[in-house]
Amino acid sequence: MRYFEDFEVGQRRVVGSLTVSRQEIIDFATKFDPQPFHIDDAAAEASIFGGLTASSCHTFALQSLIYHQGPEDIALVANLGAEDLRFPKPVRPDDVLTLSNETTATRISESRPEIGIVSMRSHLANQHDECVMQMTSSFMVRCRESA
Amino acid sequence: MRYFEDFEVGQRRVVGSLTVSRQEIIDFATKFDPQPFHIDDAAAEASIFGGLTASSCHTFALQSLIYHQGPEDIALVANLGAEDLRFPKPVRPDDVLTLSNETTATRISESRPEIGIVSMRSHLANQHDECVMQMTSSFMVRCRESA
Repeated sequence: MRYFEDFEVGQRRVVGSLTVSRQEIIDFATKFDPQPFHIDDAAAEASIFGGLTASSCHTFALQSLIYHQGPEDIALVANLGAEDLRFPKPVRPDDVLTLSNETTATRISESRPEIGIVSMRSHLANQHDECVMQMTSSFMVRCRESA
Repeated sequence: MRYFEDFEVGQRRVVGSLTVSRQEIIDFATKFDPQPFHIDDAAAEASIFGGLTASSCHTFALQSLIYHQGPEDIALVANLGAEDLRFPKPVRPDDVLTLSNETTATRISESRPEIGIVSMRSHLANQHDECVMQMTSSFMVRCRESA
């Protein structure tokens, strides 16, 4: 388990990878973001992307999934939010996505000294090393002493 | 269909509402964010939230779903990203979530004059009028003339 004390500014890690299928893209978008260019091949061909792409909500959820598939368990308390969330390139069927991150800030919570707040720059890239999502997110992590 | 020309800075809208069930919270988290406090009642009771809460990825996807359940169809080209994404309160089972937004900026794309870029401040609140998610997002919208 990785506690607040285990995060250091400047640490870089490759969290893990996964492959997303055409059917997963269509299923997620059908449920949460049924834009024609996420669920219909003809509409997707006519879009500026020229083919089926994943909903940005799906891309956001996939970076979460990569964390949980990885070997490392963070003593997470809550997600606080993010700055500079970008989707520079779309995710396409059969893309292999790799998540890496860098710890950019750490501090103890003022109101809860048993909890620390970590900020992290995340970078999700496809198999062509194109960035499909980036953000600087902040989350609350338990301190080891409190565990 | 709502085109770029239909967005004006300062416009405020209530997009729509939905109710999220306990089972939906568990199903989404099981797939994308299987933290104990999203999928297990005992772990959730012991968390700082004192009960089951939705994954922030799920909350993010639910605001997308409210857009699509609404009566209004935006001539969306692509989501670009967001600033100031926050999850001030968690989403809980049977919460009734209402999405409202305000257009904060509009401009024509420099590289694609047939497309405009709209920025919007979104606010997702529960039935107690507590904010569960906010962000300022930007997206590309087709111009009416190009349609």
